[in-house]
Amino acid sequence: MKDLKRVVLAYSGGVDTSVCIPYLRENYGISEVITFVADLGQGEDLENIRIKALQSGAFKSIIGDLVKPFVNEFAFPAIRANALYGDKYPLSTALARPLIAKNLVALARDFNADAVAHGCTGKGNDQVRFDLTINALGPDLKIITPAREWNMSREDAISYGERFGIPAPVSKKSPYSIDVNLLGRSIEAGVLEDPMSPPDEEIFEMTSSIEDAPEDPENIVIEFINGFPISINGEELSPLDLIKRANSIAGRHGFGRLDMIEDRIVGIKSREIYETPGLLLLIKAHKEIESLTLNPDVLEFKSFVDKKWGQLVYQGFWYGPLKSALDEFISSTQQSVNGMVKIRLQKGNAIVIGRKSSQNSLYREDLATYSKDDNFDHENAKGFIYMWGMSNKIWAESKKKNIN
Amino acid sequence: MKDLKRVVLAYSGGVDTSVCIPYLRENYGISEVITFVADLGQGEDLENIRIKALQSGAFKSIIGDLVKPFVNEFAFPAIRANALYGDKYPLSTALARPLIAKNLVALARDFNADAVAHGCTGKGNDQVRFDLTINALGPDLKIITPAREWNMSREDAISYGERFGIPAPVSKKSPYSIDVNLLGRSIEAGVLEDPMSPPDEEIFEMTSSIEDAPEDPENIVIEFINGFPISINGEELSPLDLIKRANSIAGRHGFGRLDMIEDRIVGIKSREIYETPGLLLLIKAHKEIESLTLNPDVLEFKSFVDKKWGQLVYQGFWYGPLKSALDEFISSTQQSVNGMVKIRLQKGNAIVIGRKSSQNSLYREDLATYSKDDNFDHENAKGFIYMWGMSNKIWAESKKKNIN
Amino acid sequence: MKDLKRVVLAYSGGVDTSVCIPYLRENYGISEVITFVADLGQGEDLENIRIKALQSGAFKSIIGDLVKPFVNEFAFPAIRANALYGDKYPLSTALARPLIAKNLVALARDFNADAVAHGCTGKGNDQVRFDLTINALGPDLKIITPAREWNMSREDAISYGERFGIPAPVSKKSPYSIDVNLLGRSIEAGVLEDPMSPPDEEIFEMTSSIEDAPEDPENIVIEFINGFPISINGEELSPLDLIKRANSIAGRHGFGRLDMIEDRIVGIKSREIYETPGLLLLIKAHKEIESLTLNPDVLEFKSFVDKKWGQLVYQGFWYGPLKSALDEFISSTQQSVNGMVKIRLQKGNAIVIGRKSSQNSLYREDLATYSKDDNFDHENAKGFIYMWGMSNKIWAESKKKNIN
Amino acid sequence: MKDLKRVVLAYSGGVDTSVCIPYLRENYGISEVITFVADLGQGEDLENIRIKALQSGAFKSIIGDLVKPFVNEFAFPAIRANALYGDKYPLSTALARPLIAKNLVALARDFNADAVAHGCTGKGNDQVRFDLTINALGPDLKIITPAREWNMSREDAISYGERFGIPAPVSKKSPYSIDVNLLGRSIEAGVLEDPMSPPDEEIFEMTSSIEDAPEDPENIVIEFINGFPISINGEELSPLDLIKRANSIAGRHGFGRLDMIEDRIVGIKSREIYETPGLLLLIKAHKEIESLTLNPDVLEFKSFVDKKWGQLVYQGFWYGPLKSALDEFISSTQQSVNGMVKIRLQKGNAIVIGRKSSQNSLYREDLATYSKDDNFDHENAKGFIYMWGMSNKIWAESKKKNIN
Repeated sequence: MKDLKRVVLAYSGGVDTSVCIPYLRENYGISEVITFVADLGQGEDLENIRIKALQSGAFKSIIGDLVKPFVNEFAFPAIRANALYGDKYPLSTALARPLIAKNLVALARDFNADAVAHGCTGKGNDQVRFDLTINALGPDLKIITPAREWNMSREDAISYGERFGIPAPVSKKSPYSIDVNLLGRSIEAGVLEDPMSPPDEEIFEMTSSIEDAPEDPENIVIEFINGFPISINGEELSPLDLIKRANSIAGRHGFGRLDMIEDRIVGIKSREIYETPGLLLLIKAHKEIESLTLNPDVLEFKSFVDKKWGQLVYQGFWYGPLKSALDEFISSTQQSVNGMVKIRLQKGNAIVIGRKSSQNSLYREDLATYSKDDNFDHENAKGFIYMWGMSNKIWAESKKKNIN
Repeated sequence: MKDLKRVVLAYSGGVDTSVCIPYLRENYGISEVITFVADLGQGEDLENIRIKALQSGAFKSIIGDLVKPFVNEFAFPAIRANALYGDKYPLSTALARPLIAKNLVALARDFNADAVAHGCTGKGNDQVRFDLTINALGPDLKIITPAREWNMSREDAISYGERFGIPAPVSKKSPYSIDVNLLGRSIEAGVLEDPMSPPDEEIFEMTSSIEDAPEDPENIVIEFINGFPISINGEELSPLDLIKRANSIAGRHGFGRLDMIEDRIVGIKSREIYETPGLLLLIKAHKEIESLTLNPDVLEFKSFVDKKWGQLVYQGFWYGPLKSALDEFISSTQQSVNGMVKIRLQKGNAIVIGRKSSQNSLYREDLATYSKDDNFDHENAKGFIYMWGMSNKIWAESKKKNIN
Repeated sequence: MKDLKRVVLAYSGGVDTSVCIPYLRENYGISEVITFVADLGQGEDLENIRIKALQSGAFKSIIGDLVKPFVNEFAFPAIRANALYGDKYPLSTALARPLIAKNLVALARDFNADAVAHGCTGKGNDQVRFDLTINALGPDLKIITPAREWNMSREDAISYGERFGIPAPVSKKSPYSIDVNLLGRSIEAGVLEDPMSPPDEEIFEMTSSIEDAPEDPENIVIEFINGFPISINGEELSPLDLIKRANSIAGRHGFGRLDMIEDRIVGIKSREIYETPGLLLLIKAHKEIESLTLNPDVLEFKSFVDKKWGQLVYQGFWYGPLKSALDEFISSTQQSVNGMVKIRLQKGNAIVIGRKSSQNSLYREDLATYSKDDNFDHENAKGFIYMWGMSNKIWAESKKKNIN
Repeated sequence: MKDLKRVVLAYSGGVDTSVCIPYLRENYGISEVITFVADLGQGEDLENIRIKALQSGAFKSIIGDLVKPFVNEFAFPAIRANALYGDKYPLSTALARPLIAKNLVALARDFNADAVAHGCTGKGNDQVRFDLTINALGPDLKIITPAREWNMSREDAISYGERFGIPAPVSKKSPYSIDVNLLGRSIEAGVLEDPMSPPDEEIFEMTSSIEDAPEDPENIVIEFINGFPISINGEELSPLDLIKRANSIAGRHGFGRLDMIEDRIVGIKSREIYETPGLLLLIKAHKEIESLTLNPDVLEFKSFVDKKWGQLVYQGFWYGPLKSALDEFISSTQQSVNGMVKIRLQKGNAIVIGRKSSQNSLYREDLATYSKDDNFDHENAKGFIYMWGMSNKIWAESKKKNIN
């Protein structure tokens, strides 16, 4: 890694990434560190963070407003894919990583940098997502990852930073490791490292507790066109506003928390707490409208596609040929995913109580009904079962023959 | 179907199966109809039903107490298989069918009957489950299914029955079609045939409404050995008592209702309401203890096995060679599924808040921790990602070459 | 099925479909039977067949030249899907059915017919493929299937036909049931109904025996663009000519015979002999060029997609939403399936001996080589294996702990 | 890795593993290197190799006769699993690795060694298989892999060895990298690194060329009990003798060569030539007898299980919980895999021409026949297709409604 002059560093404003700035200069001889902090709707004072990078020695410090592409290009496709890693986690953090990394690569091109750097540790998932995206979009770019190499404790990092004029953090460090963006919050470490220890109520910010949630239920209707949510309660909303609205409604009623054991890419199990109220609500509604508008064979095969989609994104392969092909499959299925879902929110629950599609419903009351209007031809059942059960009956007869 | 003399009829006590008794005599020339009603914990007065069969002309009328085998041989394996058809429905009704049909075949042998009969209609799932089980266990037995053939409306059936001394039902018919057993209740038809129409609160019996559920949460601990639940809150219970206890706790807190669009075997979509509090609670806990004690590759492959298991059982293949082979797979994995799960029940929610396995936990705090006790070797990440992302990087380089 | 006036009948010229003409008139009161015979490259005298229909009482008799769409829209997509039912049979007969049925529906529209008819029996696959295609493209059209209902033996059918002026067949009936089109021949029945009885050499027409095949090998090069074969030995050929050339080369060398036990849609096993030299050769070459140009994760997932594609087509779902979505998946993957494959044909064998893609090869000699030019970083292996084997090692340590 | 005193080294007799002996002493301070060479039927002079280890400085040199367990515990289960990585390669080399590694661990226990060592390079598959097996069976044992670290070319290694009295190889190094055992030979490197370059005839030893294979076909019958081959041409043979016989027959007729692009565990594609005549023949026969004796749903699901089994073994997870569970699935299915397969060997071809199972055949001539003895009820087809195509028809009607 000789002769690197300019690097683009993913910057968060924390001690670790601040310390990366002098570290890259001292240990890699990189004179120009360009920092990039992404606005993903996390609600931080980014201008403050931008200035902090310059104070820490950055050559240039850039804020990127990624909120809209985050929703349009990442969250919304995840809804169509019913993306739930481990059947639970809607990838709220994972989805942000390829977007940030894509912007790092673009900045490296714009500023003619030789390398890209990030402060991820060696046992998380994010390092994999960053590195694979950078490889996919800029396979010629070097990747520098100080935190995987330096073996500094937090205290070491603070001392190291102070040598280069980086002030020690004023507030006491949270006992948790927390990641926040528009889609949700992920919380780990601290007492949560004991999987038998329940999460403390104080760690949640986007969702009410069941106790604090209103007594009265709230019914909402979410409408989908081509598998994308487009309105809530009849009000058409931009994707960004729709996610915000969904977060607000679901969060108020205490829906959208997860507490799970997760299998990380690197082979270990970790214990994770998430709150992702809007995204979970929208995926739930999307699955429901699919159940009304997709054929059973499509539903079954799409469940495999969805599962693989979620794994690929979790594991860092957003920009890869399999992900692209799965997207084409999903896109084809979503042409008929049109209609609305009625959901009751109450005390932590989001209960589907109705679904309707005037265009694409495959539910047929004239076939399903038990009333006199039944159009289903019952006499065909004998023939159906004859062949449906044929191979099983042949097998049974073969076994019987062997016993006799 | 000439020369049938004796038939064993699955009997429920309702008009339709009562009418089958004279119908079998009149239309098939069967002189001796032996009725069989199964006790599956549905809480009906079965002696009354037994007598009603005799009054309707049955040659013999038998009650079978199947509650214990229902739990031990059907519900408990379903828990190990995390059986959820359509990712939702725990097969509470479906599981009973092969057991009833098995007993029909056994009675046909005991009484030297030529045929077995049931009153299922031609568009439900149960006819398939009955017929396939009978084919599997008694491939030589004839199967007679009057209700698939006779084209009588309910009114017709009542009139027909009255001709043979079967009294018209005294109570007004429920607008719903309801099936009940120990594991749960399934409710369909009536206003529910409009998928946009919410279920009325009055249809539920096993579960409280969210409003009526207690304000205060209740934490319980469920323990598993070899993938089977064996105790609740430290109290060891027989499988039957454990299911009852789980029903009682979950039901009190309003957990365990489902409202879904379901793809029936016969190719139509139907709208189904279920309440299966105990079974859903136990499957949820079982999945959680699996997430702690099974390797990621086992979890992933088992999710396919589980899905197939649920489909097979839903579709009537309980007694078939694929189901047997899947059972062997599952059994092998469950040897290490030992431990306990802590769940908070509150206002319709069953929230996992802890899980622990002193013997088989694959969660390793020394590898997962962010503290100083971290034993994970972060430097290995570079090598891992080099090969993990290798093929994707080669692909990216190949694409870049084509562009340049 | 009252009041049917006009029907379009799939016509083959054989006794059974000829007899359908008077049968439809006599039994369904259909005055106008329009017959349709498809040219699929089977090499019959179709004008003769056309006239025979008129002689048998057809109102109108039509030949459709379907050879080009058969190759372009059916065979070529099957190559991209590596379509092999049961991992063996390239669907040579199955692919023709939806195309014929599509034309039946189009003719029914053109001639304002009320119904469509075909002469398939009740235990074959073709009836399913016809019926499902007709349902998909003309769900309002009635389907009439005399041969499923009439219970006539061949002798009965001949006598019946003679009553209506249909001459008895002059040549003795073949002991085999044979279907032929451009893609191949399928042979069943007769002595082949004993699965232990080898096929007689005389049943083959498109392929040489190994004995008669030339001693000398012939090397050919097949080139693919976007997953479609476009040239053989450097000569660009239309899809139709390419299939013919492939048939000729492979057939001459005795490649392309199959002898298999097949699971039919209706639940029984049958014994089938196929010869499909060109299609099998092209699928083999296509799989090979995919192995060079597709990522391992794409290859693995596509193998599931391909398998499902083959099943759907075999089972009659050519025109269905899942097939469409799988096509989109496949199409996305094939953008990089460009290159050439060298194959040696000799004595029944088609042996791949080389493959090359100047644009899209993912084989990298600089990474694969054992020579001094090796660019692969061996030191990364330790880190890779650390995490690749992490969960298995944790499991082993957990087991060891339990033993100690 | 301080304080290692004694290590067990997998030894092949080649320069690289010989050089490991002084290298382990010099670089790791290991005074006692115990070498282990496995007899896997490769036909080398192992006593000579054993002595060479001592001459190279080994403390102890051991030969292990693993031929029987190799066949019984590794090859035979692979036949039941139809193990074909990439749908082609029967794992002939891969299967040997966990067996060797298991013996390394056992020797480490016997001799109270602290570590295990092998000479695999950093980009092959074998390193992964060795390391993962050692982790699984001896997770406390250190693993030392000099060849991944030392960065010596072959010339460097020879010079280094000469310093410690290890004689330079007398014969010129083969341009190929070759691995041999009873099941087959794998050949790579040299001119084969160009995927378009055909393999030279001289590299094959177990199989005739097509030219040299006898003109006359040879028909053989292989019998299976519980999925294991037990006799050839009626002669019962031990597993070892059966593999040898199969190798001899298939090899004589030129059957069993592979030329493929393979996706290695480490993420690169390599070009591999294999000859594995007996194993490929037996897997082919096994698949055939399965097609006669297993239900279609079992065949379909087992194909997924088999694929995963092959991947796991290829990727190093022989000793892991998923492999164990798959084995239980497979074992359950094989109870009915009894019968015989007739195969014609001729000029590179192994053509199945017959299959039979007196006990477990699911082929039913009375249902499959086109003769008058047909017991299949054709009239049931209408009912079957009504429901089989129901959802597709509903979809078609829904689409039509949207168009109109």
